[in-house]
Amino acid sequence: MYQSKRKFDDVLPEVIDTLLKSPKFEKQLPEVGSWVEKLINYTTYGGKHGKGMLVPFVYQKFEDPKYFTEEKLHSARYLGWCIEMCLGSLIAMDDIIDKATMRRGQPCWYLRPDVGSSGINDCFLGYHCFTEAVELKFEKEPFYADLMKLINEEVLYTAIGQCLENSLRYTKARNNLDKFNMESIHAIALNKTTHFSFRFPLYAGLLLVNNGKERDTTEIMNICMDFGHILQYQNDHKDIYWDEASSGKVGTDIQEGKLTWFAVQALERCNEAQRSIFKEYYGSKDPEHEKRIKQLFDELQIDKVYENFRNSLYESLEHRIRKLPTKGEMEFCLEIMEAIRKQIF
Amino acid sequence: MYQSKRKFDDVLPEVIDTLLKSPKFEKQLPEVGSWVEKLINYTTYGGKHGKGMLVPFVYQKFEDPKYFTEEKLHSARYLGWCIEMCLGSLIAMDDIIDKATMRRGQPCWYLRPDVGSSGINDCFLGYHCFTEAVELKFEKEPFYADLMKLINEEVLYTAIGQCLENSLRYTKARNNLDKFNMESIHAIALNKTTHFSFRFPLYAGLLLVNNGKERDTTEIMNICMDFGHILQYQNDHKDIYWDEASSGKVGTDIQEGKLTWFAVQALERCNEAQRSIFKEYYGSKDPEHEKRIKQLFDELQIDKVYENFRNSLYESLEHRIRKLPTKGEMEFCLEIMEAIRKQIF
Repeated sequence: MYQSKRKFDDVLPEVIDTLLKSPKFEKQLPEVGSWVEKLINYTTYGGKHGKGMLVPFVYQKFEDPKYFTEEKLHSARYLGWCIEMCLGSLIAMDDIIDKATMRRGQPCWYLRPDVGSSGINDCFLGYHCFTEAVELKFEKEPFYADLMKLINEEVLYTAIGQCLENSLRYTKARNNLDKFNMESIHAIALNKTTHFSFRFPLYAGLLLVNNGKERDTTEIMNICMDFGHILQYQNDHKDIYWDEASSGKVGTDIQEGKLTWFAVQALERCNEAQRSIFKEYYGSKDPEHEKRIKQLFDELQIDKVYENFRNSLYESLEHRIRKLPTKGEMEFCLEIMEAIRKQIF
Repeated sequence: MYQSKRKFDDVLPEVIDTLLKSPKFEKQLPEVGSWVEKLINYTTYGGKHGKGMLVPFVYQKFEDPKYFTEEKLHSARYLGWCIEMCLGSLIAMDDIIDKATMRRGQPCWYLRPDVGSSGINDCFLGYHCFTEAVELKFEKEPFYADLMKLINEEVLYTAIGQCLENSLRYTKARNNLDKFNMESIHAIALNKTTHFSFRFPLYAGLLLVNNGKERDTTEIMNICMDFGHILQYQNDHKDIYWDEASSGKVGTDIQEGKLTWFAVQALERCNEAQRSIFKEYYGSKDPEHEKRIKQLFDELQIDKVYENFRNSLYESLEHRIRKLPTKGEMEFCLEIMEAIRKQIF
């Protein structure tokens, strides 16, 4: 997947160019085009682009050599960049919601001096630039309606995941720790991460594959569910344990009272006194309280629990992946797992 | 159009029910369904629903009696409510951007104590509930792809309009009064208002009409462009001149430095001293400065200028409407104009 990263990177200017030279943009005041170009370049900059690159990777691994064409591979790269544009908009929105400061090593879009609260509209604008870029390239394709349905579906799930995350946040006033359980964690990971990060690019890529829609993807999707979990927990881990220099952003999950795997695991291991500390300090904006929670996580060695859990999940996943029926599917899943493991997905 | 308002109102519960009983929602944690129901009811509540009601009105006025069915009229009402759901989400987003406090006589959605900054995701979630409700009802229809294209297109234009409005706001630091001209005003009105309020429901309704896509709508669209202008200026007028009790919201345009028809007309009539006052106080959060701008508008009798302009626009519009080729088209446009005039659109 990552061998052709440069070929993938080369396609973004074409996507932006297609968009800005299209009828809906050409006739606008010049402010619009220059703003949109800045917005897309900024919000897609510096990401790992693992989700976008998955689309051409699906095409390479799943297309029958009889039908494989360079033109379709190029279309897959274009579609991959569309998905990255969409992701960039969603992330810029998350950052406003979470009051984050840094993203991918640069200040969040909404914190730029020329943006501010209108950054909310920019997320929406960026999202519709994405659907427009998709239409400009694919509207004549027989799978266009399916692609639009897929987009609406996957982004709906992502918004549901975000909604769950927001409504299940812990605050002392809400006193809602009864929701801090693995059922909630699974619902958030499935909606927020598995759908957008795996199902979306996988099914988008399959639309370009000959008879891709008819393919049985049951077991691959099961594996992707677990990928989604690992990726979600990895992000949560980064938020708590990594510093800004390594992760490119400042963690906010503990202060925001977020329902994470780490919080649930900690609660399962708390004695009464520790549980009181959790209830007192989790979800507080005070940096001292955040430190106290991190100290509690250390006392409970949650980092260690995570490491063991993750390793055994990787092990069982590899076992299942090796049983997949075709070499293409196996290589596909193994390479994704490696990318997740190396934190480059 | 307004004769069947009750029949239109009756359809919203069906739309929400269709959504919440659909596969993507049924399997979610119970928090999701109850949140979505609250969100949709709140953000569609109290509006005039003129845009939504336009869809069944188009069907009634444009369908050949040979092909007219009650079932299709019902579908048009359903689609109209989908558009109202979409509008509710966009308005809730605008309110966050504009830091508004009241909307349609109730506190803005994001100001509810259980919402806050996650209200941004709710706008996005509400938007995708809209596309999902459309898909649930229309995905098997031959016009489904056209409908999705129309939705993406019209919402893109709306976001572009909002982007223009944001980027053309006046601030003393930007010193950008050179952009305060009628070309900018037309671009904002076209993108932000004409598209969503008229072109969207008109073309959505025509998709339900037999051969509706082939219909020549050139002159109707020209008339709708002017409707868009009137509606935009009417909203701007309300923001400046109406009090909260009458308009259901608190005006923010002057404080936000918004590029409005009133600001442009005032500037065209300012002498040097008045222009300095405008440059000094327009776009300032200080209520005293806002008062000073309103006083300037009064000195220049902008309210009177508006009244004359509006009346002559209505007059020329009526003249053009009476020349439309069919009775259906004529009645259609006259009734919309009446609704706009009575401020019930």
